[in-house]
Amino acid sequence: MVEPATDTIAATRLVPLLKDELDIVIPTIRNLDFLEMWRPFFEPYHLIIVQDGDPSKVIKDSACRCFGYMVSKKKYIFTIDDDCFVAKDPSGKAINALEQHIKNILSPSTPFFFNTLYDPYRDGADFVRGYPFSLREGAPTAVSHGLWLNIPDYDAPTQLVKPLERNTRYVDAVLTIPKGTLFPMCGMNLCFDRDLIGPAMYFGLMGDGQPIGRYDDMWAGWCTKVICDHLGLGVKTGLPYIYHSKASNPFVNLKKEYKGIFWQEEIIPFFQAATLSKDCTSVQKCYIELSKQVKEKLGKVDPYFDKLADAMVTWIEAWDELNPSGASATVSNGKA
Amino acid sequence: MVEPATDTIAATRLVPLLKDELDIVIPTIRNLDFLEMWRPFFEPYHLIIVQDGDPSKVIKDSACRCFGYMVSKKKYIFTIDDDCFVAKDPSGKAINALEQHIKNILSPSTPFFFNTLYDPYRDGADFVRGYPFSLREGAPTAVSHGLWLNIPDYDAPTQLVKPLERNTRYVDAVLTIPKGTLFPMCGMNLCFDRDLIGPAMYFGLMGDGQPIGRYDDMWAGWCTKVICDHLGLGVKTGLPYIYHSKASNPFVNLKKEYKGIFWQEEIIPFFQAATLSKDCTSVQKCYIELSKQVKEKLGKVDPYFDKLADAMVTWIEAWDELNPSGASATVSNGKA
Repeated sequence: MVEPATDTIAATRLVPLLKDELDIVIPTIRNLDFLEMWRPFFEPYHLIIVQDGDPSKVIKDSACRCFGYMVSKKKYIFTIDDDCFVAKDPSGKAINALEQHIKNILSPSTPFFFNTLYDPYRDGADFVRGYPFSLREGAPTAVSHGLWLNIPDYDAPTQLVKPLERNTRYVDAVLTIPKGTLFPMCGMNLCFDRDLIGPAMYFGLMGDGQPIGRYDDMWAGWCTKVICDHLGLGVKTGLPYIYHSKASNPFVNLKKEYKGIFWQEEIIPFFQAATLSKDCTSVQKCYIELSKQVKEKLGKVDPYFDKLADAMVTWIEAWDELNPSGASATVSNGKA
Repeated sequence: MVEPATDTIAATRLVPLLKDELDIVIPTIRNLDFLEMWRPFFEPYHLIIVQDGDPSKVIKDSACRCFGYMVSKKKYIFTIDDDCFVAKDPSGKAINALEQHIKNILSPSTPFFFNTLYDPYRDGADFVRGYPFSLREGAPTAVSHGLWLNIPDYDAPTQLVKPLERNTRYVDAVLTIPKGTLFPMCGMNLCFDRDLIGPAMYFGLMGDGQPIGRYDDMWAGWCTKVICDHLGLGVKTGLPYIYHSKASNPFVNLKKEYKGIFWQEEIIPFFQAATLSKDCTSVQKCYIELSKQVKEKLGKVDPYFDKLADAMVTWIEAWDELNPSGASATVSNGKA
């Protein structure tokens, strides 16, 4: 059986990487007790806690998490849910998830050709025979998507059908999701480069008062992947694992998800076919262009997508107001 | 379709899987001593040994391996090199590579959308939240590409630079290579469905007397992947591992590879851009169409590709002569 680590102090490094260049964003509907376990890893970093579900706040929808992305002044974001604990690797050692994310994000991706020995930049690995040499520099990494031991990230129907399933398989790999391939991006254990892809990380308009929930991170992931593909940026998935402690209520989830479950059947082909014009040279331009296509193509599916397209534009306007051009670029060298 | 069980004996698994439906093809330039170690796993199966390097034989090029594919009368092929031994999993247990390949090839692939928990059909895994339900049936699997512990499959330049590198990382995953993504297919530890993709598995015109070597399996892999993508078939990579015992001589390899190393820079964009017309409804038609494109587009790179394109046509003619339509379909039900 998989259990969370208890000894996290032994696994800490002496000097934290990117200490002044990374914000940890945590949306919470519970309390922050879970942070105690992460203390050895998170202590040197600046945290942005976004409280969800408080009626005195203006932000009521699920985009509360990305409010943190927007107000951050750092180049990198790591975000984690308040029911995620420190996982153990197969040797029993506590996993410093943030450190692995930083490794992922600081080394290139390989979106243009698949390497069968997984991440070629990792110690002990390389590009295999037949991998074109011109592609071995790779592409800048915009996103590092981590995974979950214990409670897997299943949708409500799967939760209902497999209530006892636990993820106990530790797959010791990081890989790049190839160009042109979409994936389900979960917001539970995620790191990204704000300078490279920040404006695409909009997690709304979902949750309370909206017709769907639990598609907020998915939506952000689909937009992000299409834009990364267009701009030549990489998205990685795999390590690090966190320990996901609690399965959310599948009945409540089903209510949040059910429209998404059938809308998704039109959303995926839409994103798979989406192309961006050559003059979309920034994430903002790509995102605005995508919002127009959402209105035009998905507006027919449901009027909700008209509202979502408008919200996408509002998001970019707010982002640009809070992040005047080049502001975060002063913090560190861009990799792009 | 649901039907009552008729053969309950087969379900007891006393009989090795696909015993009468699979040939093991082994090209050899050494001897067959290595087979002793595989005896417990291979004993029930029919073997096709193809002797390489004997001047009294007509087949002199590296396509000697695929001669075995062509003369087989079975639905499935497993091929392995004569310097590959049984590997151990992290618990120390001998890995039955063939059994894992059979599992891979008999379960569907997921080429149209990436599943972050890897193979969703494996015990203990499933499709994650956000995976479209309409895609959960998957696609028939045409190819299972296994990996190597100990000596990794590196090209000559990487061998020269990292002579001591050994692959010690056991990654406990099988994944589908997404549609539209090319990969370097190594012929060392490979299983495929002859009915679904056999005619694309041509490993020549390479080796002795030809300007390049060590790109034979790569060429087959690129053709195979483009055709699988066109026909909606899946290609998996990952488990099983074999133990690769001997690094081949990097100096000899460099001589074989060097033209391939720069030709490859044109070959990859060619295959990435290749599209097949709608009337390419069989592997043979796809392969002939591809051979025409090779002649037209790669003939300019070097006259060798004209010869290769002709050889591709000859290969299909020979395949069809030895494999009259539907012949192997009598052995078992097609999955496609």
